[in-house]
This record gives sequence, C-alpha cells and structure tokens, in this order.
Amino acid sequence: MPALVWLLDYASALVFALTGALVASRLQLDPVGFIFMATMTAVGGGTLRDLILNRATVFWVDRPSLILLAAGAAMLVFWTAHLVESRQQWLRWLDAFALAVAVPAGVGVALEAGVSPVIVVLMGVVTGTFGGLMRDVVGNELPLVLKQGELYVTAAFGGALTAAALIWMGLDRSAAVVLGGAVTLVLRLGSMILGWQLPVYRPRPPRNR
Amino acid sequence: MPALVWLLDYASALVFALTGALVASRLQLDPVGFIFMATMTAVGGGTLRDLILNRATVFWVDRPSLILLAAGAAMLVFWTAHLVESRQQWLRWLDAFALAVAVPAGVGVALEAGVSPVIVVLMGVVTGTFGGLMRDVVGNELPLVLKQGELYVTAAFGGALTAAALIWMGLDRSAAVVLGGAVTLVLRLGSMILGWQLPVYRPRPPRNR
Amino acid sequence: MPALVWLLDYASALVFALTGALVASRLQLDPVGFIFMATMTAVGGGTLRDLILNRATVFWVDRPSLILLAAGAAMLVFWTAHLVESRQQWLRWLDAFALAVAVPAGVGVALEAGVSPVIVVLMGVVTGTFGGLMRDVVGNELPLVLKQGELYVTAAFGGALTAAALIWMGLDRSAAVVLGGAVTLVLRLGSMILGWQLPVYRPRPPRNR
Repeated sequence: MPALVWLLDYASALVFALTGALVASRLQLDPVGFIFMATMTAVGGGTLRDLILNRATVFWVDRPSLILLAAGAAMLVFWTAHLVESRQQWLRWLDAFALAVAVPAGVGVALEAGVSPVIVVLMGVVTGTFGGLMRDVVGNELPLVLKQGELYVTAAFGGALTAAALIWMGLDRSAAVVLGGAVTLVLRLGSMILGWQLPVYRPRPPRNR
Repeated sequence: MPALVWLLDYASALVFALTGALVASRLQLDPVGFIFMATMTAVGGGTLRDLILNRATVFWVDRPSLILLAAGAAMLVFWTAHLVESRQQWLRWLDAFALAVAVPAGVGVALEAGVSPVIVVLMGVVTGTFGGLMRDVVGNELPLVLKQGELYVTAAFGGALTAAALIWMGLDRSAAVVLGGAVTLVLRLGSMILGWQLPVYRPRPPRNR
Repeated sequence: MPALVWLLDYASALVFALTGALVASRLQLDPVGFIFMATMTAVGGGTLRDLILNRATVFWVDRPSLILLAAGAAMLVFWTAHLVESRQQWLRWLDAFALAVAVPAGVGVALEAGVSPVIVVLMGVVTGTFGGLMRDVVGNELPLVLKQGELYVTAAFGGALTAAALIWMGLDRSAAVVLGGAVTLVLRLGSMILGWQLPVYRPRPPRNR
C-alpha cells in the first residue's frame, strides 16, 4: 500500500502539473510563472488533505523530487504547448486523468491515517478536487469542479465511495483503491464523452403562478 | 463549556451548509455539487481556525456526523429551494444566523486553546467569516464579507470583542460566549434591517484641486 | 538569525498590511474591513508556510503585536489614503518592498526548520507571494503575482535561490538571507522601472498553416 500511494502521488503531481502549466500558458506567464501554477496545482489538494489529517510531514516536504517533477512538467508545457491544437481540450483530458489518480491517493493516505469511512471518502474528494480548484480560482477560470451538467465532484465522490465500500466488504486495500480510481475515471470520461450527468437543480416557479 | 461549543459547532455547520447549498442552486449543480458547496461552507472557517491553533484534530475529523449533517442540509435545499420566493434573501438571512453562531464557536475553541485575547477575538472572526468567504470566492459571488456599507466583519468583530471583554471582566465563559453571539446577531440584523453602518472609506479629492 | 527573522516578520507584516488596506480602500470598506484585509495580507503567506512546515506555533499566534501592528497600519491608510495621488501606484511599490522582506523571512524560517534546499526556496516563494495572492483573489483584483510581462514570482524565486546558493557556498546564513532579499528587490524594481522580463509564453501557429 505505501508503494502504491507513493506511485499515485507522483503520477497525480505530474499530470496536475501539466494542467496548471496549461492554465499558465493561457495567462501568457513566464517560465517561473509556469512552475508556480504547475506546482500549486500538483500538490494543492494533497497539501490540504495532509494539513487536515495533521500528518507529521506534508507529503512533498520530505520528497522535493515531487516539486522538481512538477517544475519539469511546467517547462515541458512552456516549450511545447504551441504545438497542440486546443490547449483547452488537453487541459480537460489531462485533468480527468489527474483526478482519477489523485482521488485514490487521497483515499490511500486517509486509510493509513485510520480515520472513519466518511472522512476517508471526503479526503479522496478533497485530494482530487482542490488542486484544480486553486488552479482555476487563481487563474480566474470558471472552476472545472463546478461546471454545470458534468460529473466532476460526483466522479471523485463515486470513486472514493467505491473504494471505501470495497474495503468494508473485505477487499484488499490496494485493489480497492485502484478500482476506486478506475470508477472515477470511467464516470468522468463517461460524462465528457457520452454526456452522462445527474439531474441538476433547476428552479421551477412556485405552484400558484 | 465543551458542551456549548459542541452545540455551536453543529448549529453553525447546519446553517452555513444551507447557505452553501443555496449558492449551489444558483450555480445549478447536481446533488453531489450541492454537498460539496454545503460542506465546504459548513466547516471551512472552523477548519482554518483549528489549523492555525494547531489543534490535535480538526473538529470534524473525529465527528463525521457534522459532515453528514451538512450533506443532509444540502439535499434538503436541493429538493425545496424552488419553493422559496427569493433564494438570495434566504441566503443573506441564514448567513446572518450562521455568522452569529460561528463567531462564539470560534471564541470558545480559542479560549480552550489558551491563546491571548487578541488571538481569541481574531479566531472568532476567522471562524465566522472564512466559510462564507470560501463559498463566495469559489462560487464566484461578490463576497458578503466585503459588501460595502454593511456590518459584516464588523458584526463578527463586535461579538468576539464583547465576549473577550466580558470574560476579562470576570463573567462566566459560557455566558460571555453566548452574549458575544447575540451582539454579532444584533449588529448584523441591525445592519440588514435598519441600515446600521460604520463610516466607509470615501476618497476625497486632494486639497488643491 | 532568530532576531533577523523576527525583524523581517514585523517589517513584512507592516508593509503587506498597508497594501491590504489600500485594496480595502478601493472596495470602500469600513475600518474593520480595512483591518480584515490588512491582517489577511500581512500574515497570509507566513501562515501557509508555518502550516506546511508543521511548526508548533504559527508565527503570529504567540506574537499578537503583529496583528495589532497590521491593524494600526490599516487605520493609518483609512485616514490618509485620500491624500495620495494614485493608490494603485502606492500599492505596487509597497507590494514590491513587502515581497523583498517576506521572501527572506520565509527562507530564514525554512532554514531553521531544517528542510531540504528545494523546500527552502519554495517556502521563500510561498511566504512572499501568498499574502498578496489572497488579498487580490478576495478583493477581486487581477493578482499581481500573475501580471503578464513582469517579474514577480520570478523575483521571489531569484531571491530565494540566491540565498540558498550563498548558504551552500558557505556564507553566513543571516548575510545570505539579506542578500537574497536584496536580489528580490532589485529584480522586482528592475521589472517595474526598467521593464526587465523573462520571455513569456506566446502561442505560435502550428507549423503547417
């Protein structure tokens, strides 16, 4: 399990960093601005999780290689983003994969911290969503997390809930966490490609008019 | 005192959750989006307070029922918000009550942490305002906390200061905390209903033109 | 070194508080609103740094005089801001000095915490930039940190990197930290006055059209 969480941490840092750098490209920042946005996106969600769980060390403080990885990803985007057709589309696809990796990372860390199932699920959602949310709020984009008519928080929640339920049913933790990530990915891609959604709130007029 | 803080925690989580869900209704989110906004608003201010005070456990991590309460409030709003005339008005009134409950909760927790009076007052303000501030920034609303010409931070500050002053004068802590909340409520409602305000900053032209 | 960090903490709180109050004046808030914005800007970056480094006490919790200093600065701006020609210009200049003081404060604290050089540099950047970033996001201004074509994060990064490099080369810590702050100031002012900048990202059309 620790090795799996380790892998998920690096994978989610890498892919979220790419999305942060893509937002930096839309803001036409300089290379250090790219690194700033990439790093904040890469570790934002996991940092909030670690602070809330009161872990002795935030996950990247004793692993500076995570920061260097995010910085490298930022430079890659700085030099190559002009080659892609639609940066907005790349951003959405990469963000979907980052979400599907960060949610199980959050669930895995929360399981090791020994908190209750409700908190485990919530930490999966927090880890998955807050890096991208900070990226979008700071970059002044409409937050992907609140995009109407798409499964986003719901995809994170569905995956985290699946993982928690499978563990409760006796499945091996590592397998449950991986399956949870798969559920998140399927829900998010299903929403993006096939238009899956839950009913959204639509105000109706009061009965008497 | 612990029982009182316990009660204030639940009450403020419930009422702030309703306001978060109302913002979610304006964003036309799905049910999980409602729960996301409701939970963030419900526990945001208290979470920041607990992180700053370096408490061993953030107040909701070992009380997942607080999260379930916020989620329940979110679903209630999802199913009933179309019945109300003006969601914006409900949001402002509920937010006033949530503020008046969260400020004394923050003061009570800070008192137990044994920090100095200046920090006690500040923790009251932080607990009262930051959940709503996060709700408004993420939901891209004009933050209520910064609404010009209304007492908002001032109501929180007045209540927290009252509680601290009463304790310094020898009053029982629980009574002081409750009276502080009452002062916050009176100031906020007085501002909303009767237009009470402090003088706001208005630039005047330099003297020689 | 502790005395130096102590001095930098107070200086950066004071100058950042002035910038927060200037944003409050643009929002036409009341005096308590000025204090709110000033305090958040004054201690925001250092608070995030201390939470990430898991320090026993956030730097201002046992030094409430820092909060009172920020509040005093807020009132000074409330009473005098109408006397200045351009509040926007004052905001930018003061912010440059605050950045140049906060970055070495962040580096100094991180050095005492004994983290690796990558994290030391990052903590310098975080301490320097996040107070102003919170000020601008909450106040709904375009974040200075992301202003295109200016050295801002880059100035913070350059100063923090200089300090870390000088220490690695054997220089006394206090001297290295002060020199790092000087580099930040020179880079930032050089950008504001002389237009220094790094190449920014500019999308070019794909090769075949």
